[in-house]
Amino acid sequence: MATPKGMRDLPPEMSILRKDVFARLERIFRRFGFDPLETPIVELWDTLKGKYGPEAENKMIYAFKDRWGGKELALRYDLTVPLARFISENPTRPLPFKRYAIGRVYRHEEPQRGRYREFYQCDVDTIGSKEPSSDAEILLVIGAVMKEFKLPGYSVQVNDRRLLAGIFEKGLGINRNLLAVYRNIDKLDKVGWATVRDELKKILPIGTVSRIKDVIDIQGGPFEVLDEVESQFGKIDEVKTASADLREIFELSKKVRTRLNLSMVRGLDYYTGPIFETIVKEPRIGSITGGGRYDELLGQYGRPFPATGTTIGVERLIDTGIALGIFKKVKSVTDVYVVDLGDQNYAWRVAKSLRGNGLNVRVDLMGRNWKKQVSESEKFGIRFIAMVGPKEAKKGVVTVIDKETDKKKIVKLLDVPKTIKILSKV
Amino acid sequence: MATPKGMRDLPPEMSILRKDVFARLERIFRRFGFDPLETPIVELWDTLKGKYGPEAENKMIYAFKDRWGGKELALRYDLTVPLARFISENPTRPLPFKRYAIGRVYRHEEPQRGRYREFYQCDVDTIGSKEPSSDAEILLVIGAVMKEFKLPGYSVQVNDRRLLAGIFEKGLGINRNLLAVYRNIDKLDKVGWATVRDELKKILPIGTVSRIKDVIDIQGGPFEVLDEVESQFGKIDEVKTASADLREIFELSKKVRTRLNLSMVRGLDYYTGPIFETIVKEPRIGSITGGGRYDELLGQYGRPFPATGTTIGVERLIDTGIALGIFKKVKSVTDVYVVDLGDQNYAWRVAKSLRGNGLNVRVDLMGRNWKKQVSESEKFGIRFIAMVGPKEAKKGVVTVIDKETDKKKIVKLLDVPKTIKILSKV
Repeated sequence: MATPKGMRDLPPEMSILRKDVFARLERIFRRFGFDPLETPIVELWDTLKGKYGPEAENKMIYAFKDRWGGKELALRYDLTVPLARFISENPTRPLPFKRYAIGRVYRHEEPQRGRYREFYQCDVDTIGSKEPSSDAEILLVIGAVMKEFKLPGYSVQVNDRRLLAGIFEKGLGINRNLLAVYRNIDKLDKVGWATVRDELKKILPIGTVSRIKDVIDIQGGPFEVLDEVESQFGKIDEVKTASADLREIFELSKKVRTRLNLSMVRGLDYYTGPIFETIVKEPRIGSITGGGRYDELLGQYGRPFPATGTTIGVERLIDTGIALGIFKKVKSVTDVYVVDLGDQNYAWRVAKSLRGNGLNVRVDLMGRNWKKQVSESEKFGIRFIAMVGPKEAKKGVVTVIDKETDKKKIVKLLDVPKTIKILSKV
Repeated sequence: MATPKGMRDLPPEMSILRKDVFARLERIFRRFGFDPLETPIVELWDTLKGKYGPEAENKMIYAFKDRWGGKELALRYDLTVPLARFISENPTRPLPFKRYAIGRVYRHEEPQRGRYREFYQCDVDTIGSKEPSSDAEILLVIGAVMKEFKLPGYSVQVNDRRLLAGIFEKGLGINRNLLAVYRNIDKLDKVGWATVRDELKKILPIGTVSRIKDVIDIQGGPFEVLDEVESQFGKIDEVKTASADLREIFELSKKVRTRLNLSMVRGLDYYTGPIFETIVKEPRIGSITGGGRYDELLGQYGRPFPATGTTIGVERLIDTGIALGIFKKVKSVTDVYVVDLGDQNYAWRVAKSLRGNGLNVRVDLMGRNWKKQVSESEKFGIRFIAMVGPKEAKKGVVTVIDKETDKKKIVKLLDVPKTIKILSKV
C-alpha cells in the first residue's frame, strides 16, 4: 500500500528537521509582530475558481464533488487566496492584519526531484497598509530568515511593477507584446543577454532592444541605480512614485543585502508595486523567496485592501540546507538511552529524573539484554547512554557514556543532566 | 465566500493557543523518546477501504476520484491507518518504532458544538513491543499530559480486553449478544446501574445480570481489584495473563492516577489487550484520551506487529482548557509596540534591538500618529509600549509603559528587554 503519487510520508528523520525549520521561521515571524492564521485544507470550489488562470484551474487544482450533497470542493492551491477569503469574511479585524501561515497545499503537477503534489508553503503578509514601510518590513523578515539559516551569498532582488511600466511602456514606448517582452527580460539572469536579445529582436525594433540593454545595464547599489533611473525617466509619474517608495524601502531595510534589479519581473498580473525575490549563489535553485505588493487582489473578494508579503520557499530552503550541510538529519530527538542492566525500577526512576530535567529519554521496552539495548540506541543515533544496574542503584549513581567521544563518567543521578550538558558542548 | 461546512478558520487568537498546546504536547512526547511522523492528508482509497466499518466507509469518509486519471483518493479519517500503512511500507525500520503525530483528519458528520468535519487528532504509539512496559509508558505519557495542563480530577481508566473476555465470556458464560452486553456495560459510568440492568435483563438471564453486578462492584485500588478478580477468576487463562500484565503496567505507572475499571470496554474489534481512557470530573465531556493495545491491526497491511498507543483528544483538551480558564486566548504574540513620536529611524532601531533580544515587536506601518499607534497596540492586546521620539533618540533611551499596571519607566535602550522581563513577572 503506497501513498498517492507525488505525496509522501515524512519519517522522523525528515519530520524532525522540518519541524525545527518551521519553528525557527515562526520565531522570526513573531519577532516582527506577525501572528499565525490557519485556514482549512479544503475550500469551496467557488473560492478558488477564477483566481489562478485556466491552466491551473483546469489541470492543477484538486477539485472534487463531495459524495453527499454534491458540494463542489477543492484542496487549497496556495495560502494567498484563503487569506483573501478570510479577510473578506472578517473585514472588521483591526489593521494592519499581519499574519504568517505554514501549511500544505496541493497541485497536480508531474512529480520530479524537489516537486511534489502535496507540499508546504510558508507565507508572511501584511494586509491593510499601503505604506512602503510595510514592504520594507517584509524585506527585514527575509533578511532575518537568510541570516538565521546562514544561506551563503544570498541577495534580495527588488524591483517595482510601476517602475517597469514607467520605463518600458512609457519611457521606451513598448506597447505591444508586453507580456512576451517582460517574460524575456525576466530570463536575463538565467540565460544571459545574447539569448534575451535574440528573442526580443523578434518582437521589437532593434533600437528599442538596445535601449532595453542600456536600462538593464545600469549598475550599482540601489540608490545609485535609482539616481540613474530618475535622471533618465524621472519625469514619468509611475517612475517618480515608485522611485520615492523604493528609496524609503531601501532606507528602512539597509541592513538587508538588497539589489535593485531592473530586469526582475515576476507575475505581473498579480503585483501592483514593489516586488521581491531572493536568490542564492550556490546551489543554483532559482529563487528561494518571492513576493511583493498586491493591492488589487483582495478587492476580488469584496472590499479592497492594500497588501504586501512574501512566500518563503520552505521546500527549497530545506532541500538547499540539506545539500549545503546547513541542516543535519537526525534519526531521533532522543538525547539519552537508559540501558537497564537488571534493575528496571531504578532504570525507570533514572529516566523519570532525566525527563524532569529537560532531556528526551528512551528506555528498553522490548525486554532486551543490555547489549541489544545499546545496539537499539545506536540504530536511533542516540548520543548518550546512561548505564544503570543493581550496583548503580545501590549507590544512586549512573554510568554516563558519550558515544561521540567514548567518554565515560560515573556520576550521581542528580548530576546526570549537568554532565550531559557539559559533554554536549565539548 | 465562506469555508466548507464544518471546516473553520483558526484566526490568530485560536491559532496561537493551539500552537502553544501542540508545542507543549510535542515536548512531552519527545521527553519519552517519541519522534514525529507526518503522513499525507490524502490517501489512496484502497488504503482506507475496509478499515472503519460500513457506516464510516459509506457515510463519513471524504472519498473522491481525481479529475485526471480517475485515481480513487480519500482524505485521511484518522492517524492510525496511515501509521499502519507507513509501517507496512517500511518494515525494516528499527523497533520499537515510537511515533507521535498531530494532524488534521476529515469526517463527514453533522457539525455541532465541538464537532467539526476537519479537526485535529493527536496520537502517540509504540510499534513492535508486546511488553507491558510499552503500555505502561503510554500511561506515563498520559499522566504527564494531564499534569502539564493541570486538568482537575482526572483519572486514567484501565481495563483489558482479555480480562473482559475471561470474566464475562468464560467466567460468566455469556456467549450470545456479546456486543450488546459490552456496549451496555460500557455505559455504566454515564447512565448508572439501574438503566444498564434493565437493558441487560432483556438479553441475559437474571442470574447472569446479578453476577455482572458483583463483578463491576469490585472496589479498591488497581492491585486490590486485581487480587479480587484473581481470587474469583484466576484459573481462566486470559484472566491470568491479563492480570499479570496489568500488575506490571500498574507497577511501572504508579505515579499516574490510574483506576482499574472493569466496566470500561471501548471498541472491542480493534483492541487486543490493555485499554485506557482518561476522564475528567469537570466539565463532563466524556473521555479526553482513549487508546490501548492493538496487536492485530497492523497485520491487515502485511506483517503483524504488536502495537500500543493513545489518542489525546486535542480538540476536547483545548475546549475544556478554555472552559476551565486554563488556556487564555491572546490576540497577538506581540510583546511590545514601539510607538514612533517622530523619529522613524530611531523607532526601527529600537525595534531591531528588542527583536534581537527575543521580544516580539510591532512598529507603525500605517503612518499613524502616536495616539492611533497606541490605539492599535490596544486593539491587538499588546502589553508593553515603547515610546520613542526625537528626545529619546538624542539620549538613547526609551519610555517603557506597562499597560497592565500603567507603570512607566524611562530606561536606556539596552536595558529595555531586562525591564520588560522584570515588569512581566510582577
